[in-house]
Amino acid sequence: MNKGLLFVLSGPSGVGKGTVCAALRKRLPDLIYSVSATTRSPREGEQDGVNYFFKSREQFQEMIERDALLEYAQYVGNYYGTPRDFVEKTLSEGKDIILEIEVQGALKVKEKFPEGVFIFLMPPSLNELKTRITGRGTESQTVIDHRLSMAQEEINLLYHYDYAVVNDQIELACDRISAIITAEHCKRERFLHELLPDIDAVAAADNV
Amino acid sequence: MNKGLLFVLSGPSGVGKGTVCAALRKRLPDLIYSVSATTRSPREGEQDGVNYFFKSREQFQEMIERDALLEYAQYVGNYYGTPRDFVEKTLSEGKDIILEIEVQGALKVKEKFPEGVFIFLMPPSLNELKTRITGRGTESQTVIDHRLSMAQEEINLLYHYDYAVVNDQIELACDRISAIITAEHCKRERFLHELLPDIDAVAAADNV
Repeated sequence: MNKGLLFVLSGPSGVGKGTVCAALRKRLPDLIYSVSATTRSPREGEQDGVNYFFKSREQFQEMIERDALLEYAQYVGNYYGTPRDFVEKTLSEGKDIILEIEVQGALKVKEKFPEGVFIFLMPPSLNELKTRITGRGTESQTVIDHRLSMAQEEINLLYHYDYAVVNDQIELACDRISAIITAEHCKRERFLHELLPDIDAVAAADNV
Repeated sequence: MNKGLLFVLSGPSGVGKGTVCAALRKRLPDLIYSVSATTRSPREGEQDGVNYFFKSREQFQEMIERDALLEYAQYVGNYYGTPRDFVEKTLSEGKDIILEIEVQGALKVKEKFPEGVFIFLMPPSLNELKTRITGRGTESQTVIDHRLSMAQEEINLLYHYDYAVVNDQIELACDRISAIITAEHCKRERFLHELLPDIDAVAAADNV
């Protein structure tokens, strides 16, 4: 069976990652959503293994120690993390999985899972970066320099990602992410990788 | 203005490149179709600049000499080729262009236009390559070796392409190519490339 692909959707806070991801899941019911582990208590209606994997602090510490998390962080006194085994199990079943995560977490996932497809969701304003920087050509050099250095941080972040998707409209952003998922499955190297393990196995068998 | 992208659709003869390309053009009216130059006479209803650029042998020879063709070949005594200026003009107007071409021509285009996006259209049978090669596991080594060397040629060709699209159904093949076009526009390096020329210009202006 062909392995699934890991898609990581990230971007600045407030850009609408959660909304886009929810819309995408409705549209692509076969896409699996990565379930996080957390030490916070379940809220009413939340189910273990669906909304979160609920863990005690001891269990979570133990997961950290045996490198069972692709990334983790603390917010407001609780741990949140991405269990590696859920991701790997899903991929080995030939299913695609999507992980919606903030920027620092995404960079950690990339260290452990460089073969993932990293998508940077951008506010529409970043699309206007060029205009914002150069302005009307009447700004002083100090103003332009300041804008350049502000923009540089956003641009530097982008270098860690494979794709940049502007979240101008939720449905358009979903169209683009959905296209990225389809296109990634058509990539020549993935196609060959799917063919070659068996071809290699046959070739290896020759040498026995 | 952002430059358009060049998409090259190729694949083995008889795979259905023309049919898929025609269906794609209906679906994506903004996608420009590369018009070939030829020395053959126009057939009834064919228009110069629409179906082909009709040229005399002298004109065609002159285009070859001044490297005005991305590729050319002879069939049944006539020349056919891809005029470079039509492609470059379209791209500089910010429009995407698609070039439907046989495999040898695609490789020549790649030499002159490595930044193009190369899509290999495959017969559904190639998808079953793995099964064809390994068979039921009861074949002799001679049979498997023969199949491997037959398949090797198809696999070697694929290495020159960015994407492999199976033409199992025309509409599905169009979905995949259409997704590739959208995804390519979301690629981080294209996005940065669109931003950075102006940023570079501003930075360069600093040093004046």
